Amino acid sequence: MSGKVYLIGAGPGDPQLMTLKAARALGRADVVLVDALVNRGCLAHTRSGARIVEVGKRAGGGTSQAFIEKVMVQTARNGHTVARLKGGDPFVFGRGGEELRALLDAGIEVEVVPGITAGIGVPGALGIPLTHRELAHGVTFITGHGADVDWAALVCSRTTLVIYMGLRNLKNIVCGLQAAGMDPRTPACVIENGTLGTQRQLITRLGALSSAGFRGPALIVIGAVVGLARVPVQQKAKAA
Amino acid sequence: MSGKVYLIGAGPGDPQLMTLKAARALGRADVVLVDALVNRGCLAHTRSGARIVEVGKRAGGGTSQAFIEKVMVQTARNGHTVARLKGGDPFVFGRGGEELRALLDAGIEVEVVPGITAGIGVPGALGIPLTHRELAHGVTFITGHGADVDWAALVCSRTTLVIYMGLRNLKNIVCGLQAAGMDPRTPACVIENGTLGTQRQLITRLGALSSAGFRGPALIVIGAVVGLARVPVQQKAKAA
Repeated sequence: MSGKVYLIGAGPGDPQLMTLKAARALGRADVVLVDALVNRGCLAHTRSGARIVEVGKRAGGGTSQAFIEKVMVQTARNGHTVARLKGGDPFVFGRGGEELRALLDAGIEVEVVPGITAGIGVPGALGIPLTHRELAHGVTFITGHGADVDWAALVCSRTTLVIYMGLRNLKNIVCGLQAAGMDPRTPACVIENGTLGTQRQLITRLGALSSAGFRGPALIVIGAVVGLARVPVQQKAKAA
Repeated sequence: MSGKVYLIGAGPGDPQLMTLKAARALGRADVVLVDALVNRGCLAHTRSGARIVEVGKRAGGGTSQAFIEKVMVQTARNGHTVARLKGGDPFVFGRGGEELRALLDAGIEVEVVPGITAGIGVPGALGIPLTHRELAHGVTFITGHGADVDWAALVCSRTTLVIYMGLRNLKNIVCGLQAAGMDPRTPACVIENGTLGTQRQLITRLGALSSAGFRGPALIVIGAVVGLARVPVQQKAKAA
């Protein structure tokens, strides 16, 4: 009899921001496949004797997607319960859709356990509401490495913009938004290692956004709501 | 000495989708202010003797926002620990930004505990990834009762659209998107009472979306990714 796979979101960083359901699923797993970006504190919920497999992918290196999917299918087919632990939510820039498809195609039972995506949990920890009366009636999540972004559409949508993995492409993002008519004085921020003790942020304006000094995984938030952050606009990046 | 207020997201419905941090904060509270849409199972984490105050707002009725803010400020000033429990995430269409502001202005200590927003947790439970290679490079969350939505911008953004509270305005939403050029064959769904035992859904195409038969809180998801749902497209709405 085949085992089951739990496709689990570990949340934005702080292990306490994992769900009760995720902690319980981890406690049932014989094998845990964990991404590089997941805080190791999340593994406290695994049972003793569980096998922990690191399948980190940083900047394109590390374990291939096909290999991860193969390991999950084979482990489940051997009758083991598998926990696949991914940062944030599995279905928001997490390639969870591909893993779910591969498992279902192989006839494996899968349960999806959602997690708090960084784009929500990280601004929240700074007191930045993604929506707010009179400031933003919606929010858009995109990645920063997309080549074919319609900047004008994003500006016209008047939603708060949350950009994942945008640090390397920050100059193009700022240029694209300004060329499409966004005011360079729009409040904007970069948050690195959000919700963790190592969190650092630069809270500034669109025209002054800079990746200087950031190296870790970072989130960019652009919109009037950033002006409501509990740390005042234009503070220099520093440890929180 | 003033007490502290925890501004807590209860998640999308299923009480197991609350975070570990939320459960712990609830256990510390002397007074819990809970919204109508929060599943009562979430209150299992409160300590015995805690006072539970229902501050539900359904369709504009119920307790006023000003009253809720006043109760929180006064309770904290009396030295009590307050848990303010809101559905989903406090900062995604939750008016949490207003409550945080009111508390900070009154000099009260506040800790924000994010939650899984319905727009992520509910499609996730149906196996719908909000982003997926070649299908959607981003996702936009909006409310369905906004009068000034730029439909063309949303269509051009080519992100998955997640619409909160859109049931009453569904006809206008569908017309607006089609007039702006969205293909009526685009996969789309309505999900009512998502992640709960009472969940019901209609998985169909944009042109065939209908609010008929839905009464509870519902979420609308529009985009090619809906075609990946574990329940096939064009199934009639029924209990999950």
